[in-house]
Amino acid sequence: VNIGVFDSGLGGLTVLRSLVARQCFQTIIYYGDTARVPYGSKDRDTVVRYALEALSFFANHQIDMLVVACNTVSVVALEVMHKVADYPVVGVVEPGVHSLVNAVPDRQSRVLVIGTRSTIHSGQYQRSLQSMGYQSVDACAAPLLVSLVEEGIHEGPVMDAVLDHYFAHQEKPDAVILGCTHFPMIAAALRRYWGDVVLVHSGEAIVEWLDSRGYLGQTTPSCQVEFFASENTPRVRQIGEAFLADVSDTQDAVKKEIKGVGKE
Amino acid sequence: VNIGVFDSGLGGLTVLRSLVARQCFQTIIYYGDTARVPYGSKDRDTVVRYALEALSFFANHQIDMLVVACNTVSVVALEVMHKVADYPVVGVVEPGVHSLVNAVPDRQSRVLVIGTRSTIHSGQYQRSLQSMGYQSVDACAAPLLVSLVEEGIHEGPVMDAVLDHYFAHQEKPDAVILGCTHFPMIAAALRRYWGDVVLVHSGEAIVEWLDSRGYLGQTTPSCQVEFFASENTPRVRQIGEAFLADVSDTQDAVKKEIKGVGKE
Repeated sequence: VNIGVFDSGLGGLTVLRSLVARQCFQTIIYYGDTARVPYGSKDRDTVVRYALEALSFFANHQIDMLVVACNTVSVVALEVMHKVADYPVVGVVEPGVHSLVNAVPDRQSRVLVIGTRSTIHSGQYQRSLQSMGYQSVDACAAPLLVSLVEEGIHEGPVMDAVLDHYFAHQEKPDAVILGCTHFPMIAAALRRYWGDVVLVHSGEAIVEWLDSRGYLGQTTPSCQVEFFASENTPRVRQIGEAFLADVSDTQDAVKKEIKGVGKE
Repeated sequence: VNIGVFDSGLGGLTVLRSLVARQCFQTIIYYGDTARVPYGSKDRDTVVRYALEALSFFANHQIDMLVVACNTVSVVALEVMHKVADYPVVGVVEPGVHSLVNAVPDRQSRVLVIGTRSTIHSGQYQRSLQSMGYQSVDACAAPLLVSLVEEGIHEGPVMDAVLDHYFAHQEKPDAVILGCTHFPMIAAALRRYWGDVVLVHSGEAIVEWLDSRGYLGQTTPSCQVEFFASENTPRVRQIGEAFLADVSDTQDAVKKEIKGVGKE
């Protein structure tokens, strides 16, 4: 199976990492729209236009399925992308909710969704969780957490102040949906802040979901990853390869070829 | 005189405000590239491309001069824009340094430049200040301060933590060049942090500079401001008008018509 991974920028590497670790794909084509990142504070129409342009990019590559790693695109543009693409397009919302239901089946659990402003204001996670019977669903747009990750700040006094800014008046959740690709990078800080809490990671959720739907074939002996971006593909390839470097160590049953091939 | 103001997004409204208050322009056309904001972490090539696209936008409007409010564009693309445009293009670096020299003529003064990563890494402010004889010039890329302003955070514990993050080990400066259009919004926090300090504001600096070069004509009885954006022009117009609402109160000698005319 050859798949594409689309993200607004580099955050989708957390999702790519989970897909690579699952060892079921011959080729993964990663495309990040780094020239126009971030999407989270932009208009619906703009995000839809960018998402359709991403489909044009993938039209030049042989993919059997497209994973939309970006939560903003998943809530805003997935429906339009479904109509245009002639292969399955999988977003992060349905897998995220599916994963949460598996991890925290008790419908009395307190669930918190965090993400960009677009993701939270769309209300998609919240509606989906409520339709699954969860009564206690909170949501918080936390764009500064994205900025901190982009600054390489994963802990410390700035992180503490920002967590307090968003969550000081929030009752401790039982589970948190990490509704932005950047947030797995601050999982440790969130665990320290809340103590015992289930964190739903989009990448792991997508792998679980694809598996449950029979989309994953047999284990493959090698996975070739190709990186593309709307600006500075060589830099994205370099960052991407560094980010994946230790995946083959933790999954040493199969040797992976992680190979970056840019469009430049 | 009819002028254009170009910014990557809404930050340039701080510059627009200074221009409107000066009461010398018949028409000011503001264009913000809100669909692709921010520029500060993007590549040179990308920023140059976007800047040239902005010139194409202004080709459809009668302007006598273009003010580039965005510091990132000013340091990265001004030279190219000069070559392409057939009217003067004024960036913020030269006026900012000019204003600093007037405010803090003592070359022994300690000067700090803060801005986006692109602005600081270009080294333009620093080189220009050194060529003017300033010996003690520091520079700090402070992208989180931009994120805070965009979140409407101008003071409080998050602001304090971020200021400490960037400046705790910085000797107190005598003057700070606010090398990002967002930073005038946090002037109060910066003054509280450093006490007695000269803050150089790009908008005021540009007005001073235009004046010193004889670019400003007579006072005009009214100034029409038109807002355009690469996404959601009506929202930009609304925010822009709100941001300018009190300018006519503080400058009540002349009644201004501030009128938003969008492209949508």
